Amino acid sequence: MSKIAKTDHPVHELVARRWSPYGYSARPVAEPDLRSLFEAARWAPSSYNEQPWRYILASRDDPAQFERLLECLVPANREWARTAPVLALGVFKRSFSHDGSPNAVAMHDLGLAAGNLCLEATARGLYVHQMAGILPERARELFGIPDDFQPITGIAIGYAADLDTLPEKLRRRDTTPRRRKPLGELVFGPRWGETSEVVG
Amino acid sequence: MSKIAKTDHPVHELVARRWSPYGYSARPVAEPDLRSLFEAARWAPSSYNEQPWRYILASRDDPAQFERLLECLVPANREWARTAPVLALGVFKRSFSHDGSPNAVAMHDLGLAAGNLCLEATARGLYVHQMAGILPERARELFGIPDDFQPITGIAIGYAADLDTLPEKLRRRDTTPRRRKPLGELVFGPRWGETSEVVG
Repeated sequence: MSKIAKTDHPVHELVARRWSPYGYSARPVAEPDLRSLFEAARWAPSSYNEQPWRYILASRDDPAQFERLLECLVPANREWARTAPVLALGVFKRSFSHDGSPNAVAMHDLGLAAGNLCLEATARGLYVHQMAGILPERARELFGIPDDFQPITGIAIGYAADLDTLPEKLRRRDTTPRRRKPLGELVFGPRWGETSEVVG
Repeated sequence: MSKIAKTDHPVHELVARRWSPYGYSARPVAEPDLRSLFEAARWAPSSYNEQPWRYILASRDDPAQFERLLECLVPANREWARTAPVLALGVFKRSFSHDGSPNAVAMHDLGLAAGNLCLEATARGLYVHQMAGILPERARELFGIPDDFQPITGIAIGYAADLDTLPEKLRRRDTTPRRRKPLGELVFGPRWGETSEVVG
């Protein structure tokens, strides 16, 4: 399968197997699986154990909630994401709860929680596609999100579609091999931009 | 072992077993393992496949580089992190490479890469402790980090210390059970703050 990462160094199969589909199967996600995905997110690390992550969840089983959530995506994402059986918004709390000061890493820590969610999904044969293209102000209005919380990602969850059932455009996207920059362009030693001897 | 997460719903053992030690063993991290940790980070998803993550890496084998990296941590973190055999800084690129526009989710995507790094570490018996308490301007000076890149996290990597060898303060920290907010406070349905029926 072309989507398995062609890595330069060995990685755990959950890293190699994860990818972000545009096409989803109609197969619903069982609620115990969904609970485990968010349970995994819950156990991510965070600065001061603040746990700044919050989610708004919408399953196709609740059509009104699902439509509200779709409305929070930019049109280009709405188009493909509506085939996913489950959608969510990722939200982070801007301030620390213990003293109200700004949490400069809250968005980073939401990303850590999302990493756990993806890991758990992959382990269960599920796929996650995250989107930066959301309409945060629409989400605030529709779900009553307070000022101290920032919606930042859309999250589609489900089983990947059988490729034969996809329109040509999505099939092309979902069969393109995953590509990454060389590791040497990412990990530096004493001078910025110069590959660390450890990875070089 | 008290550090294994007591979860309310089943999660993959790599999620349950991960925790952030303050005390590290003197055992070095083999270079192939280190390469696999950053290789796992490399394969995280990111908005527009920008891959905004960069790392500055310092192993105890290079004492000058290790000291420079320690200098970028706030004193309270320097104190315990100096026992780790490997330190790194997590840095994100602020702008998109394809058009130079601001990347509003770059920090989030660095968190996704960190999630993969932690997964790979846990699978290899290694432990990661991330820190928000760094001195970004010191890091800029010491490593020549350009304006378009933002250092945001410190990362300690190694094997957890034998608890008997730790001073009392660190032993207490490293034996405290992991705690999290209830899942119902994190996952909402149609109204903010009201638990989604799926997880409730």
